[in-house]
Amino acid sequence: MIDTSRRGLMAAGLAAAALPGLALAAAPPVGRQVPGLYRRRIGEIEVTCVSDGSIALPPAVFGEANLPETRRVLAEAFLDGNAPVPCALNTFLVNVGGRLVLIDTGSGDWLGPTMGQLPANLAAMGVTPDKIDIVVLTHLHRDHAGGLLDKENRPLFPTAELVVPEVEMAFWTDDANTGKVPQGSRGGFPYAKQVEAAYRGRIRRLARGAEVLPGITAIDAFGHTPGHTIYRVASGPAQLLVFGDMVHVPAVQTRFPDWGIAFDVDPAGAAATRRRVFDMAAADRLLVAGMHVGFPGLAHVRKAGDHYALVAAPWQSAL
Amino acid sequence: MIDTSRRGLMAAGLAAAALPGLALAAAPPVGRQVPGLYRRRIGEIEVTCVSDGSIALPPAVFGEANLPETRRVLAEAFLDGNAPVPCALNTFLVNVGGRLVLIDTGSGDWLGPTMGQLPANLAAMGVTPDKIDIVVLTHLHRDHAGGLLDKENRPLFPTAELVVPEVEMAFWTDDANTGKVPQGSRGGFPYAKQVEAAYRGRIRRLARGAEVLPGITAIDAFGHTPGHTIYRVASGPAQLLVFGDMVHVPAVQTRFPDWGIAFDVDPAGAAATRRRVFDMAAADRLLVAGMHVGFPGLAHVRKAGDHYALVAAPWQSAL
Repeated sequence: MIDTSRRGLMAAGLAAAALPGLALAAAPPVGRQVPGLYRRRIGEIEVTCVSDGSIALPPAVFGEANLPETRRVLAEAFLDGNAPVPCALNTFLVNVGGRLVLIDTGSGDWLGPTMGQLPANLAAMGVTPDKIDIVVLTHLHRDHAGGLLDKENRPLFPTAELVVPEVEMAFWTDDANTGKVPQGSRGGFPYAKQVEAAYRGRIRRLARGAEVLPGITAIDAFGHTPGHTIYRVASGPAQLLVFGDMVHVPAVQTRFPDWGIAFDVDPAGAAATRRRVFDMAAADRLLVAGMHVGFPGLAHVRKAGDHYALVAAPWQSAL
Repeated sequence: MIDTSRRGLMAAGLAAAALPGLALAAAPPVGRQVPGLYRRRIGEIEVTCVSDGSIALPPAVFGEANLPETRRVLAEAFLDGNAPVPCALNTFLVNVGGRLVLIDTGSGDWLGPTMGQLPANLAAMGVTPDKIDIVVLTHLHRDHAGGLLDKENRPLFPTAELVVPEVEMAFWTDDANTGKVPQGSRGGFPYAKQVEAAYRGRIRRLARGAEVLPGITAIDAFGHTPGHTIYRVASGPAQLLVFGDMVHVPAVQTRFPDWGIAFDVDPAGAAATRRRVFDMAAADRLLVAGMHVGFPGLAHVRKAGDHYALVAAPWQSAL
């Protein structure tokens, strides 16, 4: 007797493709990734890493002259240096005593469908933009601030206070600075003014080293942009250093911390800041959160001779 | 005028804790981790890493004599060698042409509430146990096979075919082998017989090197247990090596690949297998999936002198 039951066919090792007439593919592939969400408790503070997606950067973003070395270290990290390199984009939602503080907003609709996933990921955890109490920016580059406005330049966070480092806001709202930034970043000047207009009356220009609110404190990390700012999230002895754009491609910039990336306004300043922040994180064994560190973006920094390595923090299946 | 609005109080930097009378904590902490799910496409095959949770192992599990070295490499990985060390537990759900194959079942209710999360995580993706077509085991240790039975030893997968490597099944169903395993593993003998009884009539004893079904092929990896088996998932040129218990604490066993762990039935054999599988994965630059590699468990193996390192595969926000 020929066994035509599903199990019988399976045991016979017949592939679904060979049996077009049968109702196979009983479980179609899901076909999509899970929401980019991950949680970590920092003392009494709950931090959720919320992915905005990922984009691919050309390896030459670290300079044509550095391409051979770039490709070598990418290969060591099992990345293909002859193709665009994945660059994650994370934001961090911080719940401090019931108030929701979103650090960076993702890229909005500015960088295509592989990015701009913040709203969908927030929705997957039941958070709509009107629930956000404070939006705070590391800097005004559009991949971090593009999620502030819709296509008609209306605010996407209807009630949030917008906290922008004052040095950063001053720089990008002054057209006299246009010549100081890479050609590709000049859209930042009109964008800053659109943000200023859209959020008028609820923008706080954050002084250097000031508190966003108790538990979140700014630290200067100038260079990548003139007012690039990172944030210490602290509750009791527990802390997390949300270190913004210290790296864009960790495999490359930990190995060659002195290299700039094409988007740096001041590559040498960015490199000096990178070493200062890495040294601090390594010495204090700080948990860090990087906007461009592979999701969920949490790691420690290890000093390795004259360079560094990021050691991803293990996924915790419970808070 | 005193601004008593919510924003005014926030701007004044007053902590929620200081204002007990007000309706603060508008957004209570979520208080739980996201479901432990992550997807990766291997050619036409969709693999979902499904976490069963995590457990903590005493650092002495690698031997009292190795404690100083164990602590040193744990510290390098920013883990506390003076406390129990987290050990993740992953399973992998493989969709091959519409058939759902679950590799390992997690620990069931055998290891307490930080483990046994497979059913809840499967449910979070809409998969109930009756949807699983094939359950295939790497080995019969209870953290991998404990999810087969409920407390009354009834099968938790009501319709699945159960595929067990034949060498493994033969070993654990023969009481003559009792003296060959560590004291703490002897419960494996009665457990194997309970499994055999519960799944009678739908158990397939998998020959060495055989196909589970087209796309999933067994590879001997004996040592950790006598029939410990790993699986190559392949679709066209794409492949993933689901390498079972090649490591339990990657930071330790990549650095000291010749060390056994207390649960090894044959520590020397396990170490030789570890080197063979690591060498193969490193030489072929294979993507590997480890049951005890930090969730989602996907990595590449790098050879580093006489030892190895695992390089976590970056999270992909799209399939």
